[in-house]
Amino acid sequence: MAKFIHRQRLPNVENTGFSPNSAIEGGRLINRDGNINIKKTGIPIFDRLSLYHVLLRMPRWKFLLLVFGFYFALNILFATAFYFIGIDGLDGATLQETQMNQFLTAFFFSAQTLTTVGYGHISPVGITANTLASFESMVGILAFALVTGVFYGRFSRPKAYIRFSDQFLIAPYRGATALMFRLATFKNNHLTDVDANVSLAMHVLEEGVLKTKFYTLKLEISKVVSLALSWTLVHPINEESPLYGFTEQDFKDNRVEVMVNIRAFDDHFSNTVQQRSSYTYQELVFGAKFLPMSRLDPSGQYTLLELDKLGEHERVALPKVNEIR
Amino acid sequence: MAKFIHRQRLPNVENTGFSPNSAIEGGRLINRDGNINIKKTGIPIFDRLSLYHVLLRMPRWKFLLLVFGFYFALNILFATAFYFIGIDGLDGATLQETQMNQFLTAFFFSAQTLTTVGYGHISPVGITANTLASFESMVGILAFALVTGVFYGRFSRPKAYIRFSDQFLIAPYRGATALMFRLATFKNNHLTDVDANVSLAMHVLEEGVLKTKFYTLKLEISKVVSLALSWTLVHPINEESPLYGFTEQDFKDNRVEVMVNIRAFDDHFSNTVQQRSSYTYQELVFGAKFLPMSRLDPSGQYTLLELDKLGEHERVALPKVNEIR
Amino acid sequence: MAKFIHRQRLPNVENTGFSPNSAIEGGRLINRDGNINIKKTGIPIFDRLSLYHVLLRMPRWKFLLLVFGFYFALNILFATAFYFIGIDGLDGATLQETQMNQFLTAFFFSAQTLTTVGYGHISPVGITANTLASFESMVGILAFALVTGVFYGRFSRPKAYIRFSDQFLIAPYRGATALMFRLATFKNNHLTDVDANVSLAMHVLEEGVLKTKFYTLKLEISKVVSLALSWTLVHPINEESPLYGFTEQDFKDNRVEVMVNIRAFDDHFSNTVQQRSSYTYQELVFGAKFLPMSRLDPSGQYTLLELDKLGEHERVALPKVNEIR
Amino acid sequence: MAKFIHRQRLPNVENTGFSPNSAIEGGRLINRDGNINIKKTGIPIFDRLSLYHVLLRMPRWKFLLLVFGFYFALNILFATAFYFIGIDGLDGATLQETQMNQFLTAFFFSAQTLTTVGYGHISPVGITANTLASFESMVGILAFALVTGVFYGRFSRPKAYIRFSDQFLIAPYRGATALMFRLATFKNNHLTDVDANVSLAMHVLEEGVLKTKFYTLKLEISKVVSLALSWTLVHPINEESPLYGFTEQDFKDNRVEVMVNIRAFDDHFSNTVQQRSSYTYQELVFGAKFLPMSRLDPSGQYTLLELDKLGEHERVALPKVNEIR
Repeated sequence: MAKFIHRQRLPNVENTGFSPNSAIEGGRLINRDGNINIKKTGIPIFDRLSLYHVLLRMPRWKFLLLVFGFYFALNILFATAFYFIGIDGLDGATLQETQMNQFLTAFFFSAQTLTTVGYGHISPVGITANTLASFESMVGILAFALVTGVFYGRFSRPKAYIRFSDQFLIAPYRGATALMFRLATFKNNHLTDVDANVSLAMHVLEEGVLKTKFYTLKLEISKVVSLALSWTLVHPINEESPLYGFTEQDFKDNRVEVMVNIRAFDDHFSNTVQQRSSYTYQELVFGAKFLPMSRLDPSGQYTLLELDKLGEHERVALPKVNEIR
Repeated sequence: MAKFIHRQRLPNVENTGFSPNSAIEGGRLINRDGNINIKKTGIPIFDRLSLYHVLLRMPRWKFLLLVFGFYFALNILFATAFYFIGIDGLDGATLQETQMNQFLTAFFFSAQTLTTVGYGHISPVGITANTLASFESMVGILAFALVTGVFYGRFSRPKAYIRFSDQFLIAPYRGATALMFRLATFKNNHLTDVDANVSLAMHVLEEGVLKTKFYTLKLEISKVVSLALSWTLVHPINEESPLYGFTEQDFKDNRVEVMVNIRAFDDHFSNTVQQRSSYTYQELVFGAKFLPMSRLDPSGQYTLLELDKLGEHERVALPKVNEIR
Repeated sequence: MAKFIHRQRLPNVENTGFSPNSAIEGGRLINRDGNINIKKTGIPIFDRLSLYHVLLRMPRWKFLLLVFGFYFALNILFATAFYFIGIDGLDGATLQETQMNQFLTAFFFSAQTLTTVGYGHISPVGITANTLASFESMVGILAFALVTGVFYGRFSRPKAYIRFSDQFLIAPYRGATALMFRLATFKNNHLTDVDANVSLAMHVLEEGVLKTKFYTLKLEISKVVSLALSWTLVHPINEESPLYGFTEQDFKDNRVEVMVNIRAFDDHFSNTVQQRSSYTYQELVFGAKFLPMSRLDPSGQYTLLELDKLGEHERVALPKVNEIR
Repeated sequence: MAKFIHRQRLPNVENTGFSPNSAIEGGRLINRDGNINIKKTGIPIFDRLSLYHVLLRMPRWKFLLLVFGFYFALNILFATAFYFIGIDGLDGATLQETQMNQFLTAFFFSAQTLTTVGYGHISPVGITANTLASFESMVGILAFALVTGVFYGRFSRPKAYIRFSDQFLIAPYRGATALMFRLATFKNNHLTDVDANVSLAMHVLEEGVLKTKFYTLKLEISKVVSLALSWTLVHPINEESPLYGFTEQDFKDNRVEVMVNIRAFDDHFSNTVQQRSSYTYQELVFGAKFLPMSRLDPSGQYTLLELDKLGEHERVALPKVNEIR
């Protein structure tokens, strides 16, 4: 199979950070959301977990749930302590008929202390209750400081807000073919000096051993000044390409994975942002081209970018290139 | 028209991120304030809106109005809830003659809870009211955390604080002409390693189709070590320039747009800042030169930079260059 | 004077951001603390002042004074409002004998509201007082959000913490002479990839006009990997130097100014930091060399860097170089 | 000894920021945790201490202890003031039997004021007590602002979270030997564009004087695109290497120190991070190779990185290279 001989002449990339050892790789290397498909073991979870990273990447609803759960748990904890100190440590408590009501009084007093709202219709009496209340209000302040920090961290975290087309295409291109996919920013952010880096991983049999080989995919344009509209990344499949002569089946047989890294400068964060993604052979459309996704607004005053059309393509026949078989 | 033949020999810039398709472009590409003249559609507004970006770019008075409006709305919401729980859930309420007064009591109690001021002359009674109050004070703390974050974000957002002259000039320059505009920082900030990138968009008829062409405008000096005083950016209009031989009418006919991007390092933010702007043919003064805008302070101790003179120019005749027609 | 003819062959630096027009320059271009010796006029002060920059650069005691002054002023403002609403808007007030005491009650109530401490022994009565109190507590929260932001901004602002020797020397160096000055970080910070950029400004008479000329001073070593100890910057005065053949008087006559810019990466801020300074001919010691400022700690375990010796030098004779006159 | 003659032909690195003067160096130059082995003296401790740097680098438990200690101290301070004002300045105090109880009342009131919880069952009476309380609640707010800032600073500080193997190896490599050590990120962070810079310090006798010489160690691969798995850094010991021909004893005799600097871009912080470390001859294993530390997860879906095996190596014989003696 000439095409494989051909490919072997191309330079491998050896510094991807991934292993050339296929035997340790299961599934894709990079997930669609950009996370690396790796798990770390061998040291305790608290050592290998950056709480900040976790809190920052959590979906919003989970984060809010966690905050309220934490608030609830802290209150239960302090309420229990106040309950065991004895409800006469809390002056003005008015719900004391049952033990449940005593606990609820302690709970609400705890909430008032933790949030520093401190209405005062319930107030601590005696050294133990007072000490505990002093401690709790300080804990409240620290917890609040933490929450403020994480809120800000979540809110202000520089993100690229790039959306990629769901699939990548092998499309006709200048008499031959090219690998293409499309991306656009989907928020009211604006990226400049956008750099794309696309590489390819494939599993090949070399001397009886399955190896993972990495190649750089050269792009027609690999840097745009501004990501104003959408951007179609184009890798021409010519003799320089490791995909030269590949059929749809070849993509599958070699478990091809296209890895993308976008780096840009975000105007409003005034910071470098980066987003990664990857496509596997399962996300390939062999023989298709993207449809336009921007048009003039009816007002004639500005351009409309239609984000729902990001992945829209139509099936087309590919030119018959001299297949090397 | 020789000048257009000439221009076609110059290299196009193909990675501006804008489309060469004139048919989808209405008005200018970049607004004077640096925003891209594009709207995004096709996905729900909440998906394509970065709240943080919006809150950061809002003018100060709008932001404060929003914060107080939000505070008011939250209070209305919680007051309604307390009102429906029944005013006897609030102990010590003293304004209870009318229903309106009951609602107001609930409203003020809510405000005291949300801000955690909690005077205590009104206090929650019973499980429902207490639970709601506990919840509200937590909401208050979270809302406050958010506001603190956004305040800090707005306050600390690295900005270039550059002002551009309102117009750009075609001025006499070394026996020929040059395109010039002027900029200066207008705040007590100081930029170093200032990089200017100027490009040109024009709409031209090629083989019967209106196309948008992009060119880089070479500058006499495109980087300054420090933006201490004002900076006049100079693009000499010689044979290397896509504007070679252009008359005032040509600027208009080709709907010329000059796009500027300034990137620098801000000393005090210790961060890279960037500012964009653009001029269209409507902001052109054909045949003029800028007047000086700095002078020695009467004290003789330092230089004065007169910012109100940033755009000041006087009409001058342009040299008769060999026009290529 | 051959040395000036010689100097004129050297390339000028034209992109310093300063003007070559000596007539607008009074005193030095850059102050010792790194600020540019320029004032901006022509637009209202609020437009040309970045409050954030001001608050960040203010000395600590001034900042604290400002914060407490602001707190006091806000309280006076709200106290006046409560006072005019009438003291019966404040329930539980116990100091009401005199008008002064009434105002003080209003003042303390305002303080309790603004800081959201809200003891409740004084509490608002009636719609007006309650509305004002709701508003004030919100203002308190916003003001506090601002203060938190600025505190964090001040605290976390990346700074280089570099100290420069008070004077620069013309010292013997490899049979000839060199311009030298010394710097070191004076805090528990650590800079890496430290880049030094030194340039020279001098006022020279050219064709009867006083002009400011700028030159780059080449350094023996212009980049160090780490600023662990002190760093002596060395510009050899050879034929490549604009200072070749200069006598002490020449420095004075040409009002020589040496401008330094240090840029580095700070380990703990994980950020680029930058510091600027300048020396004028008044800070020149002609014929001296720096004394060592590090030694082995008596324990033999680590190196001591003696910061008080940063500027220490001793007078030495300069070698007789072939003076070009 | 030919190997030393050989080494002297290699270029020294002169801009490490460390001194070539062995006499001032005790022990290693860089500690294992990346700190420089230097102390600064000569200026007052408050001038040479960046509190922010200290608070950020403190272990978590120390930081929390400090915060609570500070809270306690502030309360003691204000309690003392309230105590001396006289306990009748505090209305509603219920623990007044003994002087101790009076002080405790003042203490708890102070805590309620500082945290702005302000229950109100104790409240200030009279101008002095009220003024002090107003001041204290403001101090509380400022202290809290500070704590919030530092919490956020600690939490959000970009860190590389890299772990280095405890030892470095001289391992067989392509028929000869190489110096090797291994690193990996140990948290749920992900580094891209990872740059390694390795240099060598050794103490050598030159013309009777002990000097410290610095060399760059060339790496087989000095930059990886992504630090997905572990990374073994390999410096081949060939004729280009300053370690060419070194025996285990030579490492010791010359007090060899290998200094490492890793710089990368962290995806989630969107920031450059840097980590330093160093190995001395005491951490050398002469003749060993690293064992694999990643394998396929039993599920076959992803790769496992076993962090506890980071330093795992086995003893192997080194090839007999032509020793140059």
